[in-house]
Amino acid sequence: MVDKKLGGAGLRGQSAGSTALCTVGKSGAGLTYRGYDMVELADKASFEEVAYLLLKGKLPNQAELDAYVAKLKTLRGLPDALKTVLEQIPASAHPMDVMRTGCSMLGNLETEQDFSEQQDQVDRMLAAFPSIINYWYRFSHDGVRIETETDDDSIGGHFLHLLKGEKPNELHAKVMNVSLILYAEHEFNASTFTARVCASTLSDIHSCITGAIGSLRGPLHGGANEAAMEMIENWTSADEAEREMMGMLERKEKIMGFGHAIYRESDPRNAVIKGWSEKLAADVGDEVLYPVSVRCEEVMWREKKLFCNADFFHASAYHFMGIPTKLFTPIFVCSRLTGWAAHVFEQRADNRIIRPSADYTGPENRPVEPIEARD
Amino acid sequence: MVDKKLGGAGLRGQSAGSTALCTVGKSGAGLTYRGYDMVELADKASFEEVAYLLLKGKLPNQAELDAYVAKLKTLRGLPDALKTVLEQIPASAHPMDVMRTGCSMLGNLETEQDFSEQQDQVDRMLAAFPSIINYWYRFSHDGVRIETETDDDSIGGHFLHLLKGEKPNELHAKVMNVSLILYAEHEFNASTFTARVCASTLSDIHSCITGAIGSLRGPLHGGANEAAMEMIENWTSADEAEREMMGMLERKEKIMGFGHAIYRESDPRNAVIKGWSEKLAADVGDEVLYPVSVRCEEVMWREKKLFCNADFFHASAYHFMGIPTKLFTPIFVCSRLTGWAAHVFEQRADNRIIRPSADYTGPENRPVEPIEARD
Repeated sequence: MVDKKLGGAGLRGQSAGSTALCTVGKSGAGLTYRGYDMVELADKASFEEVAYLLLKGKLPNQAELDAYVAKLKTLRGLPDALKTVLEQIPASAHPMDVMRTGCSMLGNLETEQDFSEQQDQVDRMLAAFPSIINYWYRFSHDGVRIETETDDDSIGGHFLHLLKGEKPNELHAKVMNVSLILYAEHEFNASTFTARVCASTLSDIHSCITGAIGSLRGPLHGGANEAAMEMIENWTSADEAEREMMGMLERKEKIMGFGHAIYRESDPRNAVIKGWSEKLAADVGDEVLYPVSVRCEEVMWREKKLFCNADFFHASAYHFMGIPTKLFTPIFVCSRLTGWAAHVFEQRADNRIIRPSADYTGPENRPVEPIEARD
Repeated sequence: MVDKKLGGAGLRGQSAGSTALCTVGKSGAGLTYRGYDMVELADKASFEEVAYLLLKGKLPNQAELDAYVAKLKTLRGLPDALKTVLEQIPASAHPMDVMRTGCSMLGNLETEQDFSEQQDQVDRMLAAFPSIINYWYRFSHDGVRIETETDDDSIGGHFLHLLKGEKPNELHAKVMNVSLILYAEHEFNASTFTARVCASTLSDIHSCITGAIGSLRGPLHGGANEAAMEMIENWTSADEAEREMMGMLERKEKIMGFGHAIYRESDPRNAVIKGWSEKLAADVGDEVLYPVSVRCEEVMWREKKLFCNADFFHASAYHFMGIPTKLFTPIFVCSRLTGWAAHVFEQRADNRIIRPSADYTGPENRPVEPIEARD
């Protein structure tokens, strides 16, 4: 076989396949899901509409949306065996390990037997993932076994309800909805590509999503909003933030939540979540975290020409809603599940196993020396 | 960014990186692990030596090997929480889902906190994976809670001991050793590439291996030896096998265990495992399954010029040792873990996040219609 030398490490700038799901940073288009501007979707649609769009190919009409929302509401309960598994996981565990294990375990109990089940399996995961992470969180941290079935209409509302034990107010439910739309899909990022490689072996949907969760766990991928939160929560004023940040820049420390591998000018998701973070700050009477965040944005642009990505103002927005920092990336999972699954469907519909070649850099052929002759 | 159009779907024939671990089908070299011919390793080395070679870069001397074997023997016990998880998984589950979940759960209990732990974490998995699958298998199928610590020297012996409740004879321990060497490493196959994509986000080792297990589960990747077994066990003579196979070929049915995406003339692993299958057949006095297998090989070569790959004679070999068919692919996991982990180490040592681009084939930009105006 002929190996073709590629330009960039990490397959950067190399096409690894086709997709009808998403454009990222295409000239003039920002971020689109199946041709719709993500900013417009975040303004006008619900996350359930976006999930429907990504998974089924079109925006639902009212009857379709009503039926879809009603279906998802019936799928929030967890089997006892899964609850027992979650109860075995200590409070000190990495929450992404909990998501990965919860998804994998669900695959043992409700295995996808045939690809004709794929939509139902994904709907089940969409409804159950908030239950999984919050069941574990509340049991391991608060010692309570929560009831995971709620009557909230939205996935975001369901998440907050389980976490706090009460129905969220309208503002919080709205921000969760927007946040889930912002994180839903982003073309061939590393976790999505993981899901597609797995799908290309014709493996089951739980394997694909479990693998994707494992990749999103990596600090170069998910987790930037958590890292941003851990930074900004140390600072008590905008001026302190500026002083500290200048010191970090001087010491060339890594600052999370800025810049992007593909966007060059700005991340279209930032203006949206920044706007909601500002509203939440006013709502809770915050006079520290939001001004600190704005100053960080100004300093990074002034000093480095780096813009906030989707993650930076998510930190303060989630914090204002009382979400513990360690649950930020699991929320990303609850959202990106839609994009991962849509990519799995797409891969399955026109599949060839993803099996690249490698450039060999190892030793030439050599004989096996007897063990007594080895160094 | 500039997208470069690639030739083959599934990145076929495209280099996705470098490796010093393996060559596959390189002219005149068959299959090599770090420059050593796999056939020679299967003849002269133990699986533990090959694991050491892949993970640490050199074949061990006697003192190094003794210390490594002794270390692995201390790591076979399972935490109670993991046993409880395995007990929640029904007998009807897919054994690869059990492996995936067992690995993921282990990551919750013994999380890799830092890459300096990577070798210890992999050694733990090497020792514990046979315990995980056999603990589940014996509990769910036989209702017994086995003790997973044995004093067998080899990983293959430990596996058989747990499965059957007694120390294996020398022949069986030897064949398991050879089998584990044959499956240990195979360059950028789909499961290994999954592990590398995950590693490229700097995620933890359990995420990388969990993802790889999920990809190996797919019927286009692992599982061919199981499919081969399910075919040949139906036939009671070589003549019947030939008749049935000719019918399958005529009906253009898929026949597993033959041909290979990369090898063109033969799979170098076949002659090795075929030889051991013949010895095992003589040992158990088989006069059906081995002759059936040989006839299948003859027919496929005569009719289609397709050769047996590594999987075909593994089916009869495993069967002669009394291994249930559903455990064939989990044994593959216990072996390939070494290759996956060595690739993760390699990716971490010179990392760039693997994030390819895609060719967009979806709709042009379009406005979000109000829900009442949608079809």
